[in-house]
Amino acid sequence: MPTQTFIAFDADDTLWPNQPYFDHVEAQLLHILTPYADHATINARLYDVQRANMQLFGYGAKSFMLSMIETTIQLSGGAVVGAEIQQILDLGKELLRFPIEPLPDVVEVLTELKHRGHKLLILTKGDLFDQESKIARSGLGDFFDYVEIVSEKNVPTYQRLFTRLGATPENFVMIGNSLKSDILPVARLGFPAIHVPYHANWIHEHVPAELLAEVEFQVVTRLGEVLELVG
Amino acid sequence: MPTQTFIAFDADDTLWPNQPYFDHVEAQLLHILTPYADHATINARLYDVQRANMQLFGYGAKSFMLSMIETTIQLSGGAVVGAEIQQILDLGKELLRFPIEPLPDVVEVLTELKHRGHKLLILTKGDLFDQESKIARSGLGDFFDYVEIVSEKNVPTYQRLFTRLGATPENFVMIGNSLKSDILPVARLGFPAIHVPYHANWIHEHVPAELLAEVEFQVVTRLGEVLELVG
Repeated sequence: MPTQTFIAFDADDTLWPNQPYFDHVEAQLLHILTPYADHATINARLYDVQRANMQLFGYGAKSFMLSMIETTIQLSGGAVVGAEIQQILDLGKELLRFPIEPLPDVVEVLTELKHRGHKLLILTKGDLFDQESKIARSGLGDFFDYVEIVSEKNVPTYQRLFTRLGATPENFVMIGNSLKSDILPVARLGFPAIHVPYHANWIHEHVPAELLAEVEFQVVTRLGEVLELVG
Repeated sequence: MPTQTFIAFDADDTLWPNQPYFDHVEAQLLHILTPYADHATINARLYDVQRANMQLFGYGAKSFMLSMIETTIQLSGGAVVGAEIQQILDLGKELLRFPIEPLPDVVEVLTELKHRGHKLLILTKGDLFDQESKIARSGLGDFFDYVEIVSEKNVPTYQRLFTRLGATPENFVMIGNSLKSDILPVARLGFPAIHVPYHANWIHEHVPAELLAEVEFQVVTRLGEVLELVG
């Protein structure tokens, strides 16, 4: 892999933990909904509601809150009371306030890559306000030359980004934890991508193995290893 | 005013109606909440809840839905039932689906400015997913060279934009209906701005007269008049 000029990082679950907070909130929702349904039913219904709302709401904490509320109305047969909905609102607000702590290796890797003269990018999907707030809370903002918050990270999104930056497979690399959003579309365009797996994954981000078999990308077990892979 | 290279437009209530749809939804909320409070109380509480949530939620339809739900829980003393919350969710979803019809003069003005060789920008604040969807539904996307969706349109936002574009007071103009977001911060930076008033305004966008007295900007009564003001 040649020397990259542009090194792009995913944010959630690459630079800082995110999915564990959503999982934690979902666990508390299961508790609130215990009178109304068993855990498997709640999980399945929540996922169905989220998927149905995705086209209208996009990603992020506010979408998740609205889908939790809608799931609760459905599973309670309308019997839900104000106090339960308020509990869900309060849970969701936690998602917009939790402290953003960099994952292991993050500060060291960003410091070193910056020192080597690379341009560093954040490329994250989700809710604009929510993501801006997380970047600010992380204290990592100053490492980055560009911050791009997009509604979906797919092939057209990356194509637009590459055109705008003048990025080529020789001067760009994408680093992230999501095979679906960070690796597959980048690799499909023939650009280098480095997968840094994270222990918690959202079912929506699952990629079938046969799609991964068609593309080339690198995998590291911890973020620090990227320092050996990029120039 | 010299020949502009960059002509930036606000979107909501400048290129297409937006506030009337929010006002319509708010009117329906008043109806749902009639058993719980009088209209003045509902309006005041909704605005207070929206203001309190702004720091956490930002602008847009999803924020509005969450604040409507929270207002309803408060004003009903927790007595609200699932069917009422679902009504509010369905009202909010209308805000994410309503047809986007350009306001009078919009298509003619964009066509002519494009023909004159200007670079056209959309600069809009709000929810990323929501605003992208509205631009797509408007059918106006192809007129624009840049689309910037930001969480807040204030002096630092415009400064960053001007730096990135290489914009100067000689080659840029901002056009929009919001004195607070489109006119005041631009004029404060010494850049030209054209105010196109719209009949429906959100109370949050109100600007005290003394702040406006400190800056210079132009006002037109309809969008078509900007063709005489820009080169």
